[in-house]
Amino acid sequence: MSNNISHKGLLIILSGPSGAGKGVIYNSVIERMPNIKKSISVTTRAPRPHEIDGIHYHFINIGKYREMIANNEFLETASVYKNFYGTPKAPVFEMLENGDDVMFEIDVLGTKQIKEKYPESIAIFIMTPSFKVLEQRLRGRNTETEDSIKTRLGNAKHELKEYKLYDYFVINDDIDEAIDNVMSIIKAEKLRIEKNEDLINKMLEEMR
Amino acid sequence: MSNNISHKGLLIILSGPSGAGKGVIYNSVIERMPNIKKSISVTTRAPRPHEIDGIHYHFINIGKYREMIANNEFLETASVYKNFYGTPKAPVFEMLENGDDVMFEIDVLGTKQIKEKYPESIAIFIMTPSFKVLEQRLRGRNTETEDSIKTRLGNAKHELKEYKLYDYFVINDDIDEAIDNVMSIIKAEKLRIEKNEDLINKMLEEMR
Repeated sequence: MSNNISHKGLLIILSGPSGAGKGVIYNSVIERMPNIKKSISVTTRAPRPHEIDGIHYHFINIGKYREMIANNEFLETASVYKNFYGTPKAPVFEMLENGDDVMFEIDVLGTKQIKEKYPESIAIFIMTPSFKVLEQRLRGRNTETEDSIKTRLGNAKHELKEYKLYDYFVINDDIDEAIDNVMSIIKAEKLRIEKNEDLINKMLEEMR
Repeated sequence: MSNNISHKGLLIILSGPSGAGKGVIYNSVIERMPNIKKSISVTTRAPRPHEIDGIHYHFINIGKYREMIANNEFLETASVYKNFYGTPKAPVFEMLENGDDVMFEIDVLGTKQIKEKYPESIAIFIMTPSFKVLEQRLRGRNTETEDSIKTRLGNAKHELKEYKLYDYFVINDDIDEAIDNVMSIIKAEKLRIEKNEDLINKMLEEMR
């Protein structure tokens, strides 16, 4: 691995099917590890009443969004119901250069795009202990129709099939254990020898 | 990574200079993670009064040891003060096949031999926050002569220079944090996607 990334923070991706609990894990890890920053997306959709520009999203118009795509300014971009959502590269790379870690909660397509542009990123797939448990959790929400449960289970299968994109696999059976496991992965990645080369060389200098 | 290793346990190596605290870390991790087994070495030296054959070491004669070397039965072997010490491959690989993890506390030369024979092993280097702190700890023992302190510091530098052999670097400043970091590394390694391929494929089968 090249020397110039040894000082950088980690780009961490959390993915997993709807119902696997990645949102709760994401927020808990951010809360407990203050060095990890959220990335703020850009979107073309209109702000909802409670949403604040620059906190929930950067709200921009479609012309500006197309310009950013043309200039290759995105780490990943997606369209949902005719609106665009994307992650601009510049602020993320700036955080990484400063030694901050940045964490994303993102789907398989987004992961694919980020891994292409930044292969050093650490991608974690969050899953229930089985599809049966996933189905139970979706039903337990009492907000899903039979159709939407079927759709979500089908999507979950397609997502899990892409597991080779990911570096780690975390089962969310007990939520505290799942959070602890994600935190262990992040801690371990920061202890990798390549991430500590500068420190080691400084120590060796001390002994000259 | 090949499929046939996905079920196996981890071979974990702890190294680091004398005084860095790897012995304490080794014993604490073994105590807290019951799935991790110690490996029992073979030696040609005579048992000491408290030592039990098959628990502390397997005591064998030099003829048998030479035969084992000739048959390439060792994962690593070393000679210390005219006595031989070695780790037989067979019992270690059997534990790994059974899904147990095996942990070694071993020096840089032993690590080099194990990494050659089993590149999947996870090697962790334990170090004090600086050489100055290492020196203080060695002096604090009140058992070392000035000469032995110099020798140990010189050895420590030679060992640290071999850092590229290792996968992870753990600073032992606060002992509880160092133990937690080693445990995080082990947990993370078990969550690697390659180690979970069989589980994922079983889940996907469930959805056929």
